[in-house]
Amino acid sequence: GHLLTSALSTAKVRAQVVQGQVRLGNYHLKEINVCVCVCVYVCVGVDTDLLPASGGEEMTLGFLQELVKILFGYICKSSQRSSKVLDFHHPHQLKDGLEGFSLNLPDQPETLEQILVDCRDTLKYGVSTGHPRFFNQLSSGLDVIGVAGEWLTSTANTNMFTYEVSPVFLLMEEILLRKMQSIVGWSDDDGDGIFCPGGTISNLYSILLARYHFYPEVKTRGMGALPQLALFTSEHSHYSVKKSAAVLGIGSENVAVVKCDERWAYLLSLQGLVPFYVNATAGTTVYGAFDPLNDIADICHRHTLWMHVDAAWGGGLLMSDRHRMKLQGIERACSVTWNPHKMMGVPLQCSAILVKKKGLLKECNEFCAEYLFQMDKPYNVSYDTGDKSIQCGRHVDAFKLWLMWKAKGSEGFGTQVNKCLENAEYLYDQLQMRTDFELVFKDKPEHSNVCFWYIPPSLRGLPLGTERDKRLHQVAPQIKGRMMEKGSVLIGYQPLGDKVNFFRCVFSNPATQQEDIDFLLDEIVWLGHDL
Amino acid sequence: GHLLTSALSTAKVRAQVVQGQVRLGNYHLKEINVCVCVCVYVCVGVDTDLLPASGGEEMTLGFLQELVKILFGYICKSSQRSSKVLDFHHPHQLKDGLEGFSLNLPDQPETLEQILVDCRDTLKYGVSTGHPRFFNQLSSGLDVIGVAGEWLTSTANTNMFTYEVSPVFLLMEEILLRKMQSIVGWSDDDGDGIFCPGGTISNLYSILLARYHFYPEVKTRGMGALPQLALFTSEHSHYSVKKSAAVLGIGSENVAVVKCDERWAYLLSLQGLVPFYVNATAGTTVYGAFDPLNDIADICHRHTLWMHVDAAWGGGLLMSDRHRMKLQGIERACSVTWNPHKMMGVPLQCSAILVKKKGLLKECNEFCAEYLFQMDKPYNVSYDTGDKSIQCGRHVDAFKLWLMWKAKGSEGFGTQVNKCLENAEYLYDQLQMRTDFELVFKDKPEHSNVCFWYIPPSLRGLPLGTERDKRLHQVAPQIKGRMMEKGSVLIGYQPLGDKVNFFRCVFSNPATQQEDIDFLLDEIVWLGHDL
Repeated sequence: GHLLTSALSTAKVRAQVVQGQVRLGNYHLKEINVCVCVCVYVCVGVDTDLLPASGGEEMTLGFLQELVKILFGYICKSSQRSSKVLDFHHPHQLKDGLEGFSLNLPDQPETLEQILVDCRDTLKYGVSTGHPRFFNQLSSGLDVIGVAGEWLTSTANTNMFTYEVSPVFLLMEEILLRKMQSIVGWSDDDGDGIFCPGGTISNLYSILLARYHFYPEVKTRGMGALPQLALFTSEHSHYSVKKSAAVLGIGSENVAVVKCDERWAYLLSLQGLVPFYVNATAGTTVYGAFDPLNDIADICHRHTLWMHVDAAWGGGLLMSDRHRMKLQGIERACSVTWNPHKMMGVPLQCSAILVKKKGLLKECNEFCAEYLFQMDKPYNVSYDTGDKSIQCGRHVDAFKLWLMWKAKGSEGFGTQVNKCLENAEYLYDQLQMRTDFELVFKDKPEHSNVCFWYIPPSLRGLPLGTERDKRLHQVAPQIKGRMMEKGSVLIGYQPLGDKVNFFRCVFSNPATQQEDIDFLLDEIVWLGHDL
Repeated sequence: GHLLTSALSTAKVRAQVVQGQVRLGNYHLKEINVCVCVCVYVCVGVDTDLLPASGGEEMTLGFLQELVKILFGYICKSSQRSSKVLDFHHPHQLKDGLEGFSLNLPDQPETLEQILVDCRDTLKYGVSTGHPRFFNQLSSGLDVIGVAGEWLTSTANTNMFTYEVSPVFLLMEEILLRKMQSIVGWSDDDGDGIFCPGGTISNLYSILLARYHFYPEVKTRGMGALPQLALFTSEHSHYSVKKSAAVLGIGSENVAVVKCDERWAYLLSLQGLVPFYVNATAGTTVYGAFDPLNDIADICHRHTLWMHVDAAWGGGLLMSDRHRMKLQGIERACSVTWNPHKMMGVPLQCSAILVKKKGLLKECNEFCAEYLFQMDKPYNVSYDTGDKSIQCGRHVDAFKLWLMWKAKGSEGFGTQVNKCLENAEYLYDQLQMRTDFELVFKDKPEHSNVCFWYIPPSLRGLPLGTERDKRLHQVAPQIKGRMMEKGSVLIGYQPLGDKVNFFRCVFSNPATQQEDIDFLLDEIVWLGHDL
């Protein structure tokens, strides 16, 4: 195979010389384009024997190969239905050092063999978020190409602030952002953006930018120079809107929370406050609901308000021809949060803030530090995008998404999204047919969120009302507790408004099949029928 | 070897059955504890043939092994002095698609073979930040254990918000933070903290927390409810202090920049502003200087100001018995930024904000989202630390540091830091002896930063003054440009205050040896002697 690097050959030769006993060979498979390698590894020594230590090649290769075996074993196990989703232990149990797994930090180095055991144990006591029966979070699944992207990213170990140290990754980020902007529906003349450490930070950027857009003096003079601002969001929006308002010095009580059936009617009824920003949600966290983007865009246009769409969860649906109409109107937004680490299955973290107005990100955030952003560099410094971000150093979050896009194509993402929504529809259909479960909403889910109660036999005869609610409220937490002990499946629950604790099932893992959904319902019944 | 996982064996058996031609074997080395594996991989197919696809084990293993070969080759190359630090291309060249390396995003999937070629090309056109002759950034080096930590982190692919999905990583974070707090010098009764996406965000946290500490009403009511705040920092502090003030709504012009020789004298001379916070820097970005922490602590104590120490760069010196006295007084700080991804060589990103006052992080940031932070969970929910952070989803930054700590021990970090400072001293000694270079400061460097000018022959006879400065200002950028073209070494430059462009060499890569420092000086002379 032409991909066999000479570096590897060097390591092999060294191994042959150093370890006289090692036999090495190359194998070739016929018929298909195949490479075969023989890996030798040595589980002794401390990390000072690894590269960059002189002669550290074979030790490094051996260590990495052994690690990869552990990681590959974990990936295989995560995809096996017969394996547990988690092996739960309480904090004090893990801190006490289970089966010799010590979390404590030593003064002296451990051996590389012990490091590998530590790695194995870390995975053993963790949670398999890639397991087909992990329904607990909006981010799930274990995409091998995405993981490969992260492995490369961490090996390249660079920083997104300048083209000087991140030429390829910065261009990939630009290309990805442009692509995402065009999928949102913006023209080539519009659009800017950046990858952020999570959706909350992306939403924070949107408010920061809106404030700067209307009141550029805030950057130097602070909120003291501004009128008392207010912003709007719906009651089911993510808590990051309030959190961002607190961080930015606007204050969480100046976030007007619009009830979802009021259709933004009381928009201008706030006394003494100056509204400047509306957050619309495309795919709410619990229900997966979509705000009416075009209606909200009309209001924003009429009152000259910044329209942000938090599509952290719903953005993935833009990849599907079948579902993208649920986000109609998103092209009218001033900014969009879109987390490929949710519906598109990219490993954590990968979140983008997209901004329609060009140049605003830089104007708002730049401080022109001369030790980083010299203007007399020998290349086009407009590619030094580090001054666009709040962060100085910034992790490379773009590469894994770029690599996955190469491996799936736009169409592959669409197929993946469709499958997740089909799973949601299947669960919805099952729940409709059953009498031991109750849907929180009668309507078909808009996103892949399906919310429901399990009604144990003891509650089925009870009349609706406070007493039943009180008992029903305890059902989901108790089942969840048993579920965690058993480790067979994992699903989230929460109360919301006047609704007592209910399960929320979400599908973002393409590994999940209908049999897993059947299993989930059976398991809930099994764990909860005596409650 | 007992580490051979059954999962891998399964994959091998499958390979034997599916590909009749494959011969497989196990080799055992005598004398040392050794494991040998034979890896078979197949470079065809698209990502839908990988796990979790049924029967995807051998394709996945093959793909990962091939990837590891590429990454291992890169690691070897990065440690070889004969290889280039970078292979520079302008943005337009990379975008045009060099040698078939296309950055464009396809609609249809690429083959896995092409994905591997893309990975190889991505590394080829990047910058080897682990190369012993990469002196360009405060973060450098390529720690194999740290890289292993990131590989595992991305394979585990989970989120730091709840114990439910991150039991092991949250405990590791807690243990690391406690250790770092004790190294700072805080008692067991004090201390809290969190890992953040970079030092700028850590510094932002410190101002956010200080503001909340003095004015808790800011969280709900915003800056409108507060007097006009001011904060202090030195002129050589990092630009993130001003940036944070802008983001937080305090305003960058309300950051009082204290001249470094004024010793904070005019602390209370600001008209109409209420000071609340002082940032002291332990290891400035350009000069590596340390503010007098005890003096600043006295002032802060006298005036009831929050004292923050930005030890993003200098924090690593706390690991060294020889150098930690440079941070004397840090134990009196209310908060500390410390980036293990700088001086301790941890892969990006790994930055901690440490806070002396317990509970403040949570009070300041919590919004108690019920879909994540239910109080009726079956375990001690104080371990659900996600509401302490600004972010909701949060990448696992702690594991790689934990694993490196296991592999080096506290003492190993100390040795590593000492070595970097010895390198700085060696460079300083060389520069003192030479007449073609000029030190920016006569004194021995406090940290590993060494700042200097190269004086080409044509400038040596010129009298000091504007004309010489004007020409000297152009020397460093021109040498840097040639250096990037040649790719043999990389070092940063900048102007600062009244000083024209000078080189800043920093040492944080334990791979660097004295011969690399000699090479750097020779190379600067070679590239710049005709200027």
